[in-house]
Amino acid sequence: MKILVINAGSSSLKYQLYDMTDESVLAKGLVERIGMDSSILTHKPTGKEEYTEVSEILEHTTAVRKVLNALTDAEHGVISSVSEIEAVGHRVVHGGEIFKQSALITPEAKSEIRRLFDLAPLHNPPSMMGIRAAEANMPNVPQTVIFDTSFHQTMPEKAYMYAIPRVLYNKYKVRRYGAHGTSHDFVSKEAAKFLGRPLEDLKIITCHIGNGGSITAVQGGLSVDTSMGMTPLEGLMMGTRSGDLDPAIVPYVMNKEELTVNEVNSMLNKHSGLLAISGISSDMREVTEGMEKGEANSTLAFEMYEYRLRKYIGSYAAAMNGVDVIVFTAGVGENSAVLRKRVLEQLTFLGIELDESLNAIRSGEPRRITTANSKVEVLVIPTNEELVIARDTFRLVQ
Amino acid sequence: MKILVINAGSSSLKYQLYDMTDESVLAKGLVERIGMDSSILTHKPTGKEEYTEVSEILEHTTAVRKVLNALTDAEHGVISSVSEIEAVGHRVVHGGEIFKQSALITPEAKSEIRRLFDLAPLHNPPSMMGIRAAEANMPNVPQTVIFDTSFHQTMPEKAYMYAIPRVLYNKYKVRRYGAHGTSHDFVSKEAAKFLGRPLEDLKIITCHIGNGGSITAVQGGLSVDTSMGMTPLEGLMMGTRSGDLDPAIVPYVMNKEELTVNEVNSMLNKHSGLLAISGISSDMREVTEGMEKGEANSTLAFEMYEYRLRKYIGSYAAAMNGVDVIVFTAGVGENSAVLRKRVLEQLTFLGIELDESLNAIRSGEPRRITTANSKVEVLVIPTNEELVIARDTFRLVQ
Repeated sequence: MKILVINAGSSSLKYQLYDMTDESVLAKGLVERIGMDSSILTHKPTGKEEYTEVSEILEHTTAVRKVLNALTDAEHGVISSVSEIEAVGHRVVHGGEIFKQSALITPEAKSEIRRLFDLAPLHNPPSMMGIRAAEANMPNVPQTVIFDTSFHQTMPEKAYMYAIPRVLYNKYKVRRYGAHGTSHDFVSKEAAKFLGRPLEDLKIITCHIGNGGSITAVQGGLSVDTSMGMTPLEGLMMGTRSGDLDPAIVPYVMNKEELTVNEVNSMLNKHSGLLAISGISSDMREVTEGMEKGEANSTLAFEMYEYRLRKYIGSYAAAMNGVDVIVFTAGVGENSAVLRKRVLEQLTFLGIELDESLNAIRSGEPRRITTANSKVEVLVIPTNEELVIARDTFRLVQ
Repeated sequence: MKILVINAGSSSLKYQLYDMTDESVLAKGLVERIGMDSSILTHKPTGKEEYTEVSEILEHTTAVRKVLNALTDAEHGVISSVSEIEAVGHRVVHGGEIFKQSALITPEAKSEIRRLFDLAPLHNPPSMMGIRAAEANMPNVPQTVIFDTSFHQTMPEKAYMYAIPRVLYNKYKVRRYGAHGTSHDFVSKEAAKFLGRPLEDLKIITCHIGNGGSITAVQGGLSVDTSMGMTPLEGLMMGTRSGDLDPAIVPYVMNKEELTVNEVNSMLNKHSGLLAISGISSDMREVTEGMEKGEANSTLAFEMYEYRLRKYIGSYAAAMNGVDVIVFTAGVGENSAVLRKRVLEQLTFLGIELDESLNAIRSGEPRRITTANSKVEVLVIPTNEELVIARDTFRLVQ
């Protein structure tokens, strides 16, 4: 069975086509600048040359048509007909409390997703545009939705409730939802597989650290706590997001700088984090370079980032009364050996013993970076959110 | 030397008179409802009967005069003349970055405190009223200021900076300041004394948990991190304060409920925490009773409170790469054996072994509640913020 995975943003659409007989990727690609006259399709068929096309793509339905054209193109294509695609899986950021797992798209599912627009105004409406675009182009193909939040629906009430008036939960469903669920789910399962130990027995802390970042306590295979909150702003310091903050700073700054709700949201989500402190970049690689050159601001940015991540690891060890495995994943987690080293060498009280030579290896494979004596196994596991979407879709349509 | 300690609020004034030859308390008391026609003075002379007086006290200068009258009264008094008071020590909540330690009051000190009104609009102005009232009544007596924030001025930059645009630090000094500094300072020193170990060698986590609550990582006698932030809202869940929260919830709720800056501050500081979740009380005793009766809301409130405290302990263990001593202090910390038990029995991964019978003892003395085998010493130490103020004042005026 061939499955198309779609991740739609407001002006972009990422895709991967899977052959589920061996979970291989037949092609992947990206449409950027949707809504402008010079939209770009970048198509990467496996084993063939990359193909780029610039054209006017005004909305997502056209974007999906372009993708299907590329997938079936005589020269750049990987399938002979659209009818070979037997299902489409969509990534959706926010599933609220309704979607505790992935689901087949039905008229009811679509109205539930629309009802969640209010909780994820930046993320869910583009997902719906992606769904509609796929339906328009492939009206008879079953479609599924896979949510970033579902994996975290197992959190206990004490972890997801905020200590604010209950009316806010009752009226607006203000609570912790978390994000990156497919990634935390995937790497925790991969960790158990790698170690050859039953997932049910393990206390795992998964650190998904990319431009956005979140950390999850996974006990017996279930998310019991996660750092992102009602929105992706809470938790770790990120590329451009502040992460945790005295909540009183928000009204204080709104008042002082005469900011609107939108402006303060934009400040905290787009102009904070590594970018604000380093003054040079939201990219951990550039911040690390700055630190290595001795720049004070980059050094502080790196130190804050490391320190806050390390504190969360301690906090989740306390949440589960211990930790067996720590997993690093996503862009920064998989690639920044220096960040992992700095975090882990200050967690020796947990019995962690880093193997510096293993930590320094660059590889696309799951690997252990602690010594045989380490009481906690620390692993680097490349994440694969698209594969989780493809697998869930495969399971649902069968 | 006799020293008067004053803690002035907007409509209240607490006092204690110390004899520093043996650090004994000669009398203590409280003026309430200042500014109303039925203000109440409650005066407790040591070894004599408590005395209460209701009268019209319209401002703090009158309140201090009433206190001095009571202290020198033939029947209820403990000194024969106001001239026996050789110094006055004032508690001030916010010392900003200027006051890294306690200070003698000078015209310069007063203008610095006034400059900090903006950072602590609810707390510093009443302190200044207390200072002026004491000066008016005792013009030739040296006065000192002891700040809740000073002890935390040793925090490293990575712990006190927020990951938001630097202009907010440069213009408004938005950063972490913490609070309860005199208490964290006092109990960490007492812990080292109790254990007969040098403070310099110890990693201590001090949990000051009263109606407000904060937790501090004290390494080598210095505060290296603390849970309260720019304001006392951040950190632990408290009686009526939310503690940590996705910062994006603040503008979200302001928008949905059409709240002003003052209204949202009031909601998060006065109508949240234990009160909001339990729906019955901000008092841990009543919430615990509710839990013991099986009330679901009180149970959740207790669990959230315990869980968040426990996570902070784990987080600060990670901040210091280990912990030697945990101290519980203040109203809840000293008295709630059930809270301590629930926190500590889920921290066995740190090598903590609770002695349940020691934990159950009620006493006003410093005591250990862990077994001899416990790898971390857990102590209950009654706090004494007034004594710290008296000691600092004594040192400064000598």
